[in-house]
Amino acid sequence: MALSSLNTQVVLSSRPVGVPLGEHFTIQSVPVPKLNDGEFLIKTQYWSVDPAQRGWANDVPNYMPPVALGEAMRALAVGTVVASRSPDYVEGDVVSGLLGLNGLTAYLGLTHGCSPKTGDTVIASTAAGAVGSAVGQIAKILGCRTVGITSSVQKMEFCKSVYNYDEVISYRVDDISEAIKAVCPDGVDRYFDNACGPISDAVMAHLRHGARITICGTSAATEWSPTPVGPRVHRQLLVARARMQGFIMSDHKAEFDQTYDRLSDWIRQGILTYREDVLDGIEHAPAAIEMLYRGENNGKLLIKVA
Amino acid sequence: MALSSLNTQVVLSSRPVGVPLGEHFTIQSVPVPKLNDGEFLIKTQYWSVDPAQRGWANDVPNYMPPVALGEAMRALAVGTVVASRSPDYVEGDVVSGLLGLNGLTAYLGLTHGCSPKTGDTVIASTAAGAVGSAVGQIAKILGCRTVGITSSVQKMEFCKSVYNYDEVISYRVDDISEAIKAVCPDGVDRYFDNACGPISDAVMAHLRHGARITICGTSAATEWSPTPVGPRVHRQLLVARARMQGFIMSDHKAEFDQTYDRLSDWIRQGILTYREDVLDGIEHAPAAIEMLYRGENNGKLLIKVA
Repeated sequence: MALSSLNTQVVLSSRPVGVPLGEHFTIQSVPVPKLNDGEFLIKTQYWSVDPAQRGWANDVPNYMPPVALGEAMRALAVGTVVASRSPDYVEGDVVSGLLGLNGLTAYLGLTHGCSPKTGDTVIASTAAGAVGSAVGQIAKILGCRTVGITSSVQKMEFCKSVYNYDEVISYRVDDISEAIKAVCPDGVDRYFDNACGPISDAVMAHLRHGARITICGTSAATEWSPTPVGPRVHRQLLVARARMQGFIMSDHKAEFDQTYDRLSDWIRQGILTYREDVLDGIEHAPAAIEMLYRGENNGKLLIKVA
Repeated sequence: MALSSLNTQVVLSSRPVGVPLGEHFTIQSVPVPKLNDGEFLIKTQYWSVDPAQRGWANDVPNYMPPVALGEAMRALAVGTVVASRSPDYVEGDVVSGLLGLNGLTAYLGLTHGCSPKTGDTVIASTAAGAVGSAVGQIAKILGCRTVGITSSVQKMEFCKSVYNYDEVISYRVDDISEAIKAVCPDGVDRYFDNACGPISDAVMAHLRHGARITICGTSAATEWSPTPVGPRVHRQLLVARARMQGFIMSDHKAEFDQTYDRLSDWIRQGILTYREDVLDGIEHAPAAIEMLYRGENNGKLLIKVA
């Protein structure tokens, strides 16, 4: 494969407060560095657009160090090795820090944080999103009754017809809590929280005894410095003897292989499906994160860069 | 034993909002009801004053139905059977819905909600209180480093010299978070939360990876209808992969006997101690709950009624 001597990068050029916008990034071309022993060069084909990138771009405490100003923005990707001075990778190898990411997050976050039992009512926010759509399907495969919370009529339709949710509600109603109560009259056993904010507040009012909550994301809270205020959860946790737990998939690497195999089986069996929303061209990258936070994508948002 | 034909009761005569005050109760004498088959009559000697009574007196969703207006206030007690038409109890039996309550709460709340490991830094609020003082001592016996949060200089002194806390801080400082940071520079592994409110907010800023939190009480939040607002905990739980769990001791009856034996052993060995603060006379009962919430007691607050 002929190598370009230039690497086109999307650089974090100013520090966002909250959601990174297109204006915070600049596209630039820099020389490809010379490979040292043990290194290899990857030509990326797809970049993943993830809510986690908001955290990486903000300079506040998080589970990974922030991207420095002037550095290439961090993203998960799929690519091909085009040159190698590593004994472990040869030219032509396809490598991935992306494949199955959302499925792994959904499965491991659900099983570790929520441990759902057959018959449990499982509710998930961002139900039509890359993680939420997998949570609903996996919970259903595990024998649960599933309730999805999403936004538009189109996404509600996807949740029902493609992601197999038993019930779907929109958070764009006057009273989210009443909408939840209507479909969960006996309360919620398991809650996969991708949103935080008013959606989470509404779900917390309907916890059943022994409820378990996975905190996987906080997409509805656009700012964490200072910490936003909301109704205190302590009394609800106490009265319901509920458990609320933060989850980050990278803690569970030991389970990636077996989980990936399980998810692949389900995909082959046709009981687990996913959608991809591909933006063609690196020029879409700077504004992609804000697009994600506006909820404009349908399925996993990717950027095709080669 | 000669039986009085009158029962002196402390009746909930008006509905409190938040902490029940003396004015919400009335002392009255009513005829002792005639025993039916299977029933027995107890002459109580001590009543327990507990934060849980606030919840029982308020008409908001809780883990037990509220006390109805005009009914005798619910309390844990120790007493003697003075008449019986039950095959299971005979006159002279001493019965208790109180003995070891706080120790059981501390031990079971700590082991179930926090699962502390040797060397963990365990922090507890209301550290000089009936539950908190036991939490500190038990965590220390289990090999943890213990940090107590309390109020007055006198209570701080008790925490150090009697309850064996390694470090004690007062929440009556300008910046609780800074005070915690000074004694927990590497963060907090386990948090036994009896308080909620600003104390909890401060601790949550110092969670270590994998931190666990037992929500046992919410004494610093004087009102739950409507739910008070405070900093959202979601991001802190996510970044630390922390777990926060509501705990109520009555869920763990199956473990009462073995736990009670274990605590009794420790008391006999002199490594677990407790203090009692006894108010002599039923006339102290109406104002006792507000006294507890003002933190005026030193140790377990009891009312001697016979």
